[in-house]
Amino acid sequence: MIQKLIEQIQAKNAPVVVGLDPNLKFIPAFLLEEAARNHVVSGFGSDALDTAAEAVWQFNKRIVDAVCDLVPAVKPQIAMYEQFGIPGLMAYYKTIRYCREKGLLIIGDVKRGDIGSTSAAYAQGHLGDADALDVDFATVNPYLGTDGIKPFIDVCNARDKGIFVLVKTSNPSSGEFQDVLTQDGRPVYELVGQKVNEWGALSMEGKYSNVGAVVGATYPEQGRLLRQQMPHTFILAPGYGAQGATGRDLSYFFDEEGLGAIVNSSRGIIAAWQKDSYSRYGETGFAEAARAAALDMIEDLRSAIAER
Amino acid sequence: MIQKLIEQIQAKNAPVVVGLDPNLKFIPAFLLEEAARNHVVSGFGSDALDTAAEAVWQFNKRIVDAVCDLVPAVKPQIAMYEQFGIPGLMAYYKTIRYCREKGLLIIGDVKRGDIGSTSAAYAQGHLGDADALDVDFATVNPYLGTDGIKPFIDVCNARDKGIFVLVKTSNPSSGEFQDVLTQDGRPVYELVGQKVNEWGALSMEGKYSNVGAVVGATYPEQGRLLRQQMPHTFILAPGYGAQGATGRDLSYFFDEEGLGAIVNSSRGIIAAWQKDSYSRYGETGFAEAARAAALDMIEDLRSAIAER
Repeated sequence: MIQKLIEQIQAKNAPVVVGLDPNLKFIPAFLLEEAARNHVVSGFGSDALDTAAEAVWQFNKRIVDAVCDLVPAVKPQIAMYEQFGIPGLMAYYKTIRYCREKGLLIIGDVKRGDIGSTSAAYAQGHLGDADALDVDFATVNPYLGTDGIKPFIDVCNARDKGIFVLVKTSNPSSGEFQDVLTQDGRPVYELVGQKVNEWGALSMEGKYSNVGAVVGATYPEQGRLLRQQMPHTFILAPGYGAQGATGRDLSYFFDEEGLGAIVNSSRGIIAAWQKDSYSRYGETGFAEAARAAALDMIEDLRSAIAER
Repeated sequence: MIQKLIEQIQAKNAPVVVGLDPNLKFIPAFLLEEAARNHVVSGFGSDALDTAAEAVWQFNKRIVDAVCDLVPAVKPQIAMYEQFGIPGLMAYYKTIRYCREKGLLIIGDVKRGDIGSTSAAYAQGHLGDADALDVDFATVNPYLGTDGIKPFIDVCNARDKGIFVLVKTSNPSSGEFQDVLTQDGRPVYELVGQKVNEWGALSMEGKYSNVGAVVGATYPEQGRLLRQQMPHTFILAPGYGAQGATGRDLSYFFDEEGLGAIVNSSRGIIAAWQKDSYSRYGETGFAEAARAAALDMIEDLRSAIAER
């Protein structure tokens, strides 16, 4: 699967993934009103949840239409759907199927991870069954160690899928445990990176492995080091835009060929219409604003890679 | 919420939670056949998923009926439902609502955790909205640090809920990162335990906090130490039975009053009918076998606490 991602990045010349994290505050009022009028009834939640989920789905569809020719992949954050219960998860399901129709690769940002038999069930649900919540890559939490990761790798090998394991996350408090120095002087995230290398060897595809890593774009110095320490690990880098990182911060996440990493932006693209710099598109032009923001981000990253 | 759990444990004199982790291999053939005949259609997955989900729901209902007067709480493992996609999650939804009707407290074993804004969405979905996937406690992964935990605590305080943070998990490879010694000589899980103490102070209710900890029953020595290091932290201990732990292993997870911990068994109870010791109940008596296994487990723990 990592080869498919690389091919798509090359074909579109864009190491960019659009985060489909549709918080209600990013959705224009007219779409929410439309959803309320449509009055979809799931039977698995309140009217408020059904309406929110319908608005999310309509919002996503238009964003996807506006960016699908520009980027190789999308990354729906499942939490933004789970917050609306079963109706929200139905919107997640519809969204991932729609993205697939549009030829996009899908990174399910689910950050699952548990003991072996339970991780096997998560792997089945998100990567193992075309009719379940089937995506191409899933993000995975390493805190439980190898037996929480191995079932995901088994499914990667069986069904040509990939995972991104959390190594160094983009948030302000990520250092609390991840940066703690161990007795040999290395931080915990480097130990996790080393394990990612070992796990990665179980599912190689060309230069890179189907076992990738999440490394926050907000930590450029750690990203540069991890890029060296994990030469066969593709990096998914969240934190661009709204969380503060720029193309320059990311230039050393890439390898010599400008590959090896893909950068996510969520709010910066899907909520671009709310930013001064794209306000000319107005509320009804939210999808065009997203397209413009995606183009700007792609250009920013291309320059950053070229200028190294 | 932790006080409600303590009251229920005392009322039933049973520090036991039944894990509702209905893998298909635990479900009797006749229930699967019944589910196939019923042919429920969700519109959000294949026939196979719809049938599996229906079997899970029917299985759960009878297990819950058989144990609801014996135990204070159940712990559905959401992975076992997610593996069946949207139909599986519908079965999760029906199960948690049924458990609530039966007066059981519900620990959603979801092990969520992400950056702040995303954790807030998870907290909303699992603890924050009566119509979403509303349970009483959720399990939470600490790898992202305080800003991944804080949104859950806010919801605990707003809606009288609780969480259990993973500290030392029950699985064989839990030590890979959790046991790594840091520069001051303490393992990572103790640092997490210390943070759990700090987070716990934000939501105290009597002696205990609404912020609890997951400590695997399979690591009795660590459990004894953590009990001392986290005097106000209620412990959720998985790993009893099928994973190998016994009442004796758990005796020091409890405080002087025999409180402070609740022990989970999943397979050991719900799949008891497949074990030699309960085979007399037969396939159709699977729920009675679960009841017998729950009674035996309660007795084992009562003795272990009494004999200290």
